[in-house]
Amino acid sequence: MKQIPFYSTRIEGGFWGNKQKTSRDVTVDAVYDRFEETKRFEAMKCDREQHEREGWKPHIFWDSDAAKWIEGAAYTLEYEKNERFENKIDRLVDMMCNSQREDGYYNAYYNVYDTDKRFTVRDHHELYCLGHLIEAAIAYSHATKKDKLLGMVERYVDFVIKTFVEEKSAKFVTPGHEEIELALVKLYKFTGKEKYLELSKFFVNSRGNNELDKSALQDWMTSRYPQDHLPVREQTTAEGHSVRAMYLYMAMADLALECEDDALFKACDTILHNVAEKRMYITGGIGSSHIGEAFTVDYDLKNEHAYTETCATLALSLFCQRMSKLKPLGLYGDIAELAMYNGSISGVSIKGDEFFYENPLTIDLADHNKNHATQEKERYPITQRVKVFGCSCCPPNILRYINSIGDFLYTEDDNTLYVHHYMNSSTEFEDKKICQKTLYPSCGKVKLTVKGDYKKIAVRVPSWCKKFEASAPHTIKDGYAYFDAEEVIDFNFNISPGFVVSAPGVHENAGKTALMLGPVAYCIEGVDNEGDIFALSVSTDTVFDVKPDPYFGLPVITVDGHAMVDNGKLYSDLNSVKYEPRKIKFIPYYGMENRGETDMLVWIPVKM
Amino acid sequence: MKQIPFYSTRIEGGFWGNKQKTSRDVTVDAVYDRFEETKRFEAMKCDREQHEREGWKPHIFWDSDAAKWIEGAAYTLEYEKNERFENKIDRLVDMMCNSQREDGYYNAYYNVYDTDKRFTVRDHHELYCLGHLIEAAIAYSHATKKDKLLGMVERYVDFVIKTFVEEKSAKFVTPGHEEIELALVKLYKFTGKEKYLELSKFFVNSRGNNELDKSALQDWMTSRYPQDHLPVREQTTAEGHSVRAMYLYMAMADLALECEDDALFKACDTILHNVAEKRMYITGGIGSSHIGEAFTVDYDLKNEHAYTETCATLALSLFCQRMSKLKPLGLYGDIAELAMYNGSISGVSIKGDEFFYENPLTIDLADHNKNHATQEKERYPITQRVKVFGCSCCPPNILRYINSIGDFLYTEDDNTLYVHHYMNSSTEFEDKKICQKTLYPSCGKVKLTVKGDYKKIAVRVPSWCKKFEASAPHTIKDGYAYFDAEEVIDFNFNISPGFVVSAPGVHENAGKTALMLGPVAYCIEGVDNEGDIFALSVSTDTVFDVKPDPYFGLPVITVDGHAMVDNGKLYSDLNSVKYEPRKIKFIPYYGMENRGETDMLVWIPVKM
Repeated sequence: MKQIPFYSTRIEGGFWGNKQKTSRDVTVDAVYDRFEETKRFEAMKCDREQHEREGWKPHIFWDSDAAKWIEGAAYTLEYEKNERFENKIDRLVDMMCNSQREDGYYNAYYNVYDTDKRFTVRDHHELYCLGHLIEAAIAYSHATKKDKLLGMVERYVDFVIKTFVEEKSAKFVTPGHEEIELALVKLYKFTGKEKYLELSKFFVNSRGNNELDKSALQDWMTSRYPQDHLPVREQTTAEGHSVRAMYLYMAMADLALECEDDALFKACDTILHNVAEKRMYITGGIGSSHIGEAFTVDYDLKNEHAYTETCATLALSLFCQRMSKLKPLGLYGDIAELAMYNGSISGVSIKGDEFFYENPLTIDLADHNKNHATQEKERYPITQRVKVFGCSCCPPNILRYINSIGDFLYTEDDNTLYVHHYMNSSTEFEDKKICQKTLYPSCGKVKLTVKGDYKKIAVRVPSWCKKFEASAPHTIKDGYAYFDAEEVIDFNFNISPGFVVSAPGVHENAGKTALMLGPVAYCIEGVDNEGDIFALSVSTDTVFDVKPDPYFGLPVITVDGHAMVDNGKLYSDLNSVKYEPRKIKFIPYYGMENRGETDMLVWIPVKM
Repeated sequence: MKQIPFYSTRIEGGFWGNKQKTSRDVTVDAVYDRFEETKRFEAMKCDREQHEREGWKPHIFWDSDAAKWIEGAAYTLEYEKNERFENKIDRLVDMMCNSQREDGYYNAYYNVYDTDKRFTVRDHHELYCLGHLIEAAIAYSHATKKDKLLGMVERYVDFVIKTFVEEKSAKFVTPGHEEIELALVKLYKFTGKEKYLELSKFFVNSRGNNELDKSALQDWMTSRYPQDHLPVREQTTAEGHSVRAMYLYMAMADLALECEDDALFKACDTILHNVAEKRMYITGGIGSSHIGEAFTVDYDLKNEHAYTETCATLALSLFCQRMSKLKPLGLYGDIAELAMYNGSISGVSIKGDEFFYENPLTIDLADHNKNHATQEKERYPITQRVKVFGCSCCPPNILRYINSIGDFLYTEDDNTLYVHHYMNSSTEFEDKKICQKTLYPSCGKVKLTVKGDYKKIAVRVPSWCKKFEASAPHTIKDGYAYFDAEEVIDFNFNISPGFVVSAPGVHENAGKTALMLGPVAYCIEGVDNEGDIFALSVSTDTVFDVKPDPYFGLPVITVDGHAMVDNGKLYSDLNSVKYEPRKIKFIPYYGMENRGETDMLVWIPVKM
């Protein structure tokens, strides 16, 4: 199957159109300005004298921050020429290219410091940075035809081939943080040069498959942390650092497609099922523990200490997007959608200029200052978005993600157009025209217009959809409704609010429920609900009062519930407990913590 | 009011009689042997050459371990002569007395190391150790009339008076870990020497009331950790290290009684209400966080990470016992009883030779090995009792506690006998004879026989008692039933199982219930209940099937409940969830983790 790339599509208003507008109008500059202030961009000059004069030092992964910003900004240029953005990108590209070493190497840290230690520390992100530079170069080249950065990264990749494949002179075989692997497949597809595909295969196939890498693990890691515990085709569970894991799985899926490698596909499918069935929050968030920013064990989905990094969640959806190219299986789109509408975009504020790294599912402010007997405090995720992080991977990641969201919409093969997601949009691809008119996910109705010589049109019917209606006959298979091609098909997923529960294995959520509107998870906040939100419980026989909300972009929902009455006693007879009826207001989870620091809760008790 | 001391009472079988038998027959030797193996006793010799030869070094608080063992063993001698125990105690006493310094000082560490640093580090437990030596000396002197240790500690106390009060040459005013204060009141009462009472008052009144102590805090503490944040009479909440806090409050209550100090009594009462209404687990456990082993904030009662040290819980009951001497308020006895029957004795195994330091309310074994991506692991309480700890304060503490449990039973004033607790027992005190015939708390019936010239008999009616019946007329006031004195009174608390809930402020327990049988909290364990115990929920309209159980000493209870059926999906519609009916077996909480490592749960969801 072939993807219809995002730049063939214009998202026109609606949920994602608004997100893209905010991203273009606010986030591009917001991230740029913070990175400029924090010297991340100046660092690309590799000027040691400047560092010393100004009293700062580049970090080993600052290149990736710059690259992801370039990539995100470049994506906006596909839709709207912007000289200011281009000038900024050109300046960065010049700084990088001017500092590229004779042999092709480039890294803003190692070009200046420890110059004899290049490729000696496996966990030092050099190839991760190169991967992001490749993605940036491709994005900018495609948007503007400017190839300077592309040339630079191709020279660097040649040096990597020499170092890692030909001379084997690096102190490790595969990098500690994946990313280069998927970027090389992109570069292969963009340039047509097989050597890049070969290098990607080399890295993917070598992982978990050689002794040198195991000896290059840091002391505090186990081999699972960088997905080294088994050769990739033998891996069955999502393990280790969750962002790294997803970047690996993306590359595995890419290679499965390019190389028709069924063993790789099967490993990806098995791992993705493990995530979807046992290791993923209702928000699409992944990575349960801040210790190692990592996957832990099946069903370990603690809410208040959820790590669920923005980067990991959006990468999960990108992994699913790749899987949808391999096989039209509804699950892939369902999981992608959960991550898209929840734990990814919760990482950026509604205004577009502040960010979360961790996205917890409970914020109980009282807990955050509970250790007042000692200077040591229990660790909690931050409760208010910030403008930049020390490790600021998430802000430019969500930037590039939102501005290429159209990538999720369509794939095609010789016969069939696959419609994976729903956004009000129009697409022109080769000689075809595809148009969606929809308010999804506020409303489940979609009018799909397709002009093209497809024999079939397959439309993903999300697993949460209880009643699918369409204007034309269809058959359902593996989560897709298959239609004979017609120019216009109307269909309706009949989105309505509903409560869900977790599997019994998720001990944390026993007796609790979460409110969903289609793919959108909801939460309650202190700012909307009087008193202690943790004393609230919902009635399962509630009427759902759904109201459009321009601030959040999707409706807010009010349900019937109860507040437990405090009788002043710490422990009381169950039979003596009294409840007051209470309307409980839910907002979309991604909108949490936008209106001041406040208690927040996704999983709410069902009234006893 | 005056307490009728434990040695006037023989507990005859029943719950506490059996605990005392196990303690005498097993725990005395078990603790002794482990302390002998770990050189805690040899350390009392203060022989540096021996340390070097054998390759060990005493800890600054090993004296207190030895002292508490002496105290606990001495208590058993009140009932049953035991030459073996006496010989062991005599040997320890000799070692200590032989090593006492000329000036009266004694500490098994500082006698040998850092000899110029005595009383320089506030947190180094020297006076805490002395406090325990005093309690041991009194216990042994009372039981055997052997006064050697008593003489030794009196000489040491004189040196403390000189150092702290007269010369003020120590680097702190009050000790980092309280204990000396309450011990000095005991010593005053035992010897009649006012100077000990004065010294206790000096320490208690100086706390939170001087600059030297604040400057002597360790870097990692706040002033709350050692209850320094305010002068003691101004303290209103239970703060800091929970054992230290309780030992301070005990001394405050002692002084309130001895000195008729109403301000001290009011502070104690206010703090105890804070504990009882906001900071205490249903097990009587206190100290919510392992960070500082400390109280945190109101309603912070996390179950899996509950710290609730055995020593703290038993000390809470001892604090309450002292409060009952000041005022006959049912609450004091209720809280004492909760701590006695649950979080105190959960600290020792049913067999009597293994111990818990922390007493969590949830053990979810899957969580304990969840961080497999890194070498760093999240911290959890241990899940199986051990024979000795590095810091082994709890084992000898529970030893002395159980063997003096009779202290809880009675107080008297000129007119009235107060019956605070119920144990099958006979008491001879001065010219009075008191007898209880009861199976409490298996059954709520008590036959009380009193021969003595009391005008009134006051019987505590626990707050959990829904139906109090008695053979004689009575009036109820502040949780006590007041009878005109009669030789025999039959009464019945009609103990039956029931579910309780937490206040809404306890966020952790929303939607959950705990099973109680009178004062006894129950739990469920994996070993008794098939499948995943965290998938179980109880029906509130259950029939309780109560069965005697000789192993635990109190009944096990089976209730009707449900197991959520795993449909293989991580998230499902609330309406689609299926439950299987399931009998759920509960055991007394104190009996947890006695039959191999197993999941354990106190707060259980009520079926949705």
